[in-house]
Amino acid sequence: MAVRRKLAPLPFTCVKLSDRFWAPRVEVNRTVTLPAEYAMCESTGRIAAFDLKWTPGDPNPPHIFWDSDVAKWIEAASYALATHPDRSLDDLLDRVIARIAKAQQPDGYLNTHYIVFERAGLDRRWTNLRDNHELYCAGHLIEAAVAHYQATGKPTLLEVACRYADYIDRVFGRGRGKLRGYCGHEEIELALVKLYRVTAERRYLRLAQYFVDERGRKPHYFDIEARKRGEDPARFRFGSYEYNQSHIPVREQRIVTGHAVRAMYLYSAMADLAGETGDASLLAACERIWHSVVDERMYITGGIGPSASNEGFTVAYDLPDETAYAETCAAIGMVFWNHRMLQFDGDGRYADVMERALYNGTISGVSLDGTRFFYENPLASPGDHHRQPWFDCACCPPNIARLIASVGGYFYSTDDDGVWAHLYAAGDAVFPDRSLTIAQITDYPWDGRVTLRLTPDEPRKFTLHLRIPGWCARYTLQVNGSPMANLRPRNGYVAITRAWRAGDEVLLNLDMPVQLMRAHPSVRQMTGRVAVQRGPLVYCLESADNPISPLDRISLPLNMRWRTEHRPELLGGVTVLRGRAQVDDAAWRGGLYAPARPVKRKSVEITAVPYCVWDNRAPGEMRVWFRVEPESASS
Amino acid sequence: MAVRRKLAPLPFTCVKLSDRFWAPRVEVNRTVTLPAEYAMCESTGRIAAFDLKWTPGDPNPPHIFWDSDVAKWIEAASYALATHPDRSLDDLLDRVIARIAKAQQPDGYLNTHYIVFERAGLDRRWTNLRDNHELYCAGHLIEAAVAHYQATGKPTLLEVACRYADYIDRVFGRGRGKLRGYCGHEEIELALVKLYRVTAERRYLRLAQYFVDERGRKPHYFDIEARKRGEDPARFRFGSYEYNQSHIPVREQRIVTGHAVRAMYLYSAMADLAGETGDASLLAACERIWHSVVDERMYITGGIGPSASNEGFTVAYDLPDETAYAETCAAIGMVFWNHRMLQFDGDGRYADVMERALYNGTISGVSLDGTRFFYENPLASPGDHHRQPWFDCACCPPNIARLIASVGGYFYSTDDDGVWAHLYAAGDAVFPDRSLTIAQITDYPWDGRVTLRLTPDEPRKFTLHLRIPGWCARYTLQVNGSPMANLRPRNGYVAITRAWRAGDEVLLNLDMPVQLMRAHPSVRQMTGRVAVQRGPLVYCLESADNPISPLDRISLPLNMRWRTEHRPELLGGVTVLRGRAQVDDAAWRGGLYAPARPVKRKSVEITAVPYCVWDNRAPGEMRVWFRVEPESASS
Repeated sequence: MAVRRKLAPLPFTCVKLSDRFWAPRVEVNRTVTLPAEYAMCESTGRIAAFDLKWTPGDPNPPHIFWDSDVAKWIEAASYALATHPDRSLDDLLDRVIARIAKAQQPDGYLNTHYIVFERAGLDRRWTNLRDNHELYCAGHLIEAAVAHYQATGKPTLLEVACRYADYIDRVFGRGRGKLRGYCGHEEIELALVKLYRVTAERRYLRLAQYFVDERGRKPHYFDIEARKRGEDPARFRFGSYEYNQSHIPVREQRIVTGHAVRAMYLYSAMADLAGETGDASLLAACERIWHSVVDERMYITGGIGPSASNEGFTVAYDLPDETAYAETCAAIGMVFWNHRMLQFDGDGRYADVMERALYNGTISGVSLDGTRFFYENPLASPGDHHRQPWFDCACCPPNIARLIASVGGYFYSTDDDGVWAHLYAAGDAVFPDRSLTIAQITDYPWDGRVTLRLTPDEPRKFTLHLRIPGWCARYTLQVNGSPMANLRPRNGYVAITRAWRAGDEVLLNLDMPVQLMRAHPSVRQMTGRVAVQRGPLVYCLESADNPISPLDRISLPLNMRWRTEHRPELLGGVTVLRGRAQVDDAAWRGGLYAPARPVKRKSVEITAVPYCVWDNRAPGEMRVWFRVEPESASS
Repeated sequence: MAVRRKLAPLPFTCVKLSDRFWAPRVEVNRTVTLPAEYAMCESTGRIAAFDLKWTPGDPNPPHIFWDSDVAKWIEAASYALATHPDRSLDDLLDRVIARIAKAQQPDGYLNTHYIVFERAGLDRRWTNLRDNHELYCAGHLIEAAVAHYQATGKPTLLEVACRYADYIDRVFGRGRGKLRGYCGHEEIELALVKLYRVTAERRYLRLAQYFVDERGRKPHYFDIEARKRGEDPARFRFGSYEYNQSHIPVREQRIVTGHAVRAMYLYSAMADLAGETGDASLLAACERIWHSVVDERMYITGGIGPSASNEGFTVAYDLPDETAYAETCAAIGMVFWNHRMLQFDGDGRYADVMERALYNGTISGVSLDGTRFFYENPLASPGDHHRQPWFDCACCPPNIARLIASVGGYFYSTDDDGVWAHLYAAGDAVFPDRSLTIAQITDYPWDGRVTLRLTPDEPRKFTLHLRIPGWCARYTLQVNGSPMANLRPRNGYVAITRAWRAGDEVLLNLDMPVQLMRAHPSVRQMTGRVAVQRGPLVYCLESADNPISPLDRISLPLNMRWRTEHRPELLGGVTVLRGRAQVDDAAWRGGLYAPARPVKRKSVEITAVPYCVWDNRAPGEMRVWFRVEPESASS
């Protein structure tokens, strides 16, 4: 039975955010982050690598995935250009693209590492798909090309990408003389679907399908390939091919495994393919695997992948806080995948996860001033974890830049019958094919009151689907002042069907109390602990507001009374949460260990700030999960 | 001002343990562990490496520290031979030593890795002291030689060691044309002191002194050496020379840093040198650094070094339980160092730490059946940490073997005036130079009642110093049935001076209640937690006795009533601790995260077993630190 993607996302170019939460981030991203990342790509030799002048002995040999850093920057810059005309950025992109185009080999191949660095040069291409990211880099080049083409209409990079994709299509596949391989780091699959959509060339879709279908089949391509290199496949550094989700064919996978970013990009491609081809088996695999992620392996921030050793997943319910890897790119991948899953049936479960990751575990990856980045996003820190201007492995900085530059694209969808609002933020959306604009008037996420003003060109009947977030237990809804008490949400959305007229106003009032959240009892690291959440935002305590060390001396009464306080001057303007908690006395007699005596506690005023803005002040401790006081405790 | 080592340890050969705790371990070590480790050294090519037949292309190239594994096995086997005549082991040692001797080069050099593996062969020796463990391997060869000579009187390996040491003495030092280097992994320093003691050759003592004195001086030898290799010293993999304790000269060091085993071997050598030379500045440095370890960086098991990344130390009070590295060798190093510190003044603080490490974090490193080993000794496990028969880096298995084979050597010392009993276990000790034997009749560590029966050859006045362990808050003391209530311990020891006659009996009754222990409030990982200790033993809960998952659902009331129960059939015979704790209900509604509701608790019977014997049954969870119930909680 074929599945159908009922919804289509409204492109980010149709959504102009003017809110206090996202709009400043989009602007800082455009004006600070993108120039800073460009400068890093230049100064580290990543762009110069395309000039192919590197020779052995020179510093900075082109790394196997450098090309992808430049490509993601191009993609992000193109998104910025699409929403904000900028002649100099346009010119800069042209110049960088020209350098890339010149590096392309006559047959279409394009990878600076293999062209200039590998000792036997081009003869060694495609000899280590498992480890060397060639097709991954190609995928990012394709994504960049599609973005640049859509932003500017210029085919310069798109032609390069098509030539490269055509060449890859000649090399890989099931035909005679072709390599039956696929990339160790998924990415090209979803990129080829994008390329198909913009070019309508079905070969690209079929190639994406091939890469996904072939993955994990036996005899295993990575074994064959390793033996060709004279290596013992069993010596694979990460042990099992679970690491790159090729241990079994994708349709047989039930549980998320391995490297978290790879997993997210694979499942995003599987959802894309299910949408394009109607392949129910791919969507069913996605749904199964999704449960293994969201029910058992996701941080409360939407971050995933607790382990540094494989940059990825371990076992169910293993969610350490201080040592959490929770790579920024992996949380971004959660947004990509859940956004795709959401388009099939408008199931709010996916929007809930997308929102959780968007407001917490992704944007924690960049400083408020746009110049520094987290690779790991732990949920507690003794004070030694801080954002860096760049990394040797710099996947995260341009990844968060492309997400923020296109964040408007996650807000709305359309279907045959109407429009869907998934996220809330002040701003205007234009639905060109519906001759409709929707203005949101709200201070979300600081306040749960959202007014949507609809302006169809002429009165027209359609359905407006409004998401009721999973975190929201109570809400009210009015249309033009009349309560809509009889509407019940279905799969996380209320549907209002009526003949809409210009100026119609919907008022959605989402109750947004401070909530103490518990984790499933099987999460051993969080037994007896709670986290603080309000609306979509997870909160944390930082030393800057709470000079108590270690912060874990603080415990939170279950019946704690919280006050919200909007602080426009703080951390770019945030609503802080305040209340009286308990703190263990630090008095101590004895050495490092001593017989336990009752610990005195006293009441202490604490201030929590959103997790996504931590580490933007003087270095200090941070903590999300706190010991909970027994129910009966009084302050 | 010169310092003096007032005490001298009674050699292990003079102490015969017949208790239920140590004696079976010593026997399993001799009959099972030593043969198993020998077989591993053979089957992995470690011993064959000395035949120098390895050529490029062969499997198993001799690793940089393979020689030390064989040497530590020889040392352990020699200790076993010294206390238990065994013709076939004697012969086996002779054969292995003959193979080693044949590998020695004409100039005295002896390192299988450099002789056969390095491409430019012997020309490359001493070119990377920082990373390549050459002098470390030499040190273990020397320790093995001393042990073998003392056990058998045969000079075969001792002559090899002396030739090698003589050669090293010609190569290293401050003289013209000598290399002013020292080893990245300390070990040779303490070995040379041992060699000096057995040969009386002061050059060896001076060479040890040189290695210690030169360490950390500027210009830094490891910088010079790296530049000679054409490497940038700044690219040192571990960043700072704190890793190998050479960041500053040893006398300026105040805080323990870096790789934990290296640190312990260095401080052991510094204590040795202070003892031999009277150098107060070395002892003062040891005392300062000791506080940084014991007051701020030691696990309750005596384990040290929380971090896997440097196999060592991080910052003060950083003591994670589940991710604790706490290498077996590092805890062994704590025993070595504290035993040496103890000999200066008989200060019980050192004996307390030595006992803590001996009864917990060292012997946890080997299975009860003697065939499997821990490298890391975490204080909590979700069920995935198990002992292994061997390791690529196999330092720990022969290290624990040599410790157990010589454990009797930690029990007693003598001084000018009398004898000191540091540890308690049933068995007999002979003090040859005092014409005295002491028999201990006790079931320590399962019971705190210790009878010491003294048998001097003829009545003689001297002082018997008995340790009152730091964990013991109350005790009674009788001599021949008469209470000695007026004796107060000084620095952890009571001193009984009298004319002793054959058959005199001292009864020391150490109160040994179950104690809930807390960690210093600055240990953020242990806030609100307690560990269970009885006597010298730290206890843990295992799934095998407590089928509750995760184990952290259990919390311990501060006023919990414990029952002790000796179980001869369990885990080689252990006293278990039983009582009623609280367990959080595992009922759960919702997904991975849900708004916090009061958690129901119920009373549950729990059984704790000594930490040192965990993971000897079906694989399962283990935990040392538990949430403590508030003082007022009732079960």
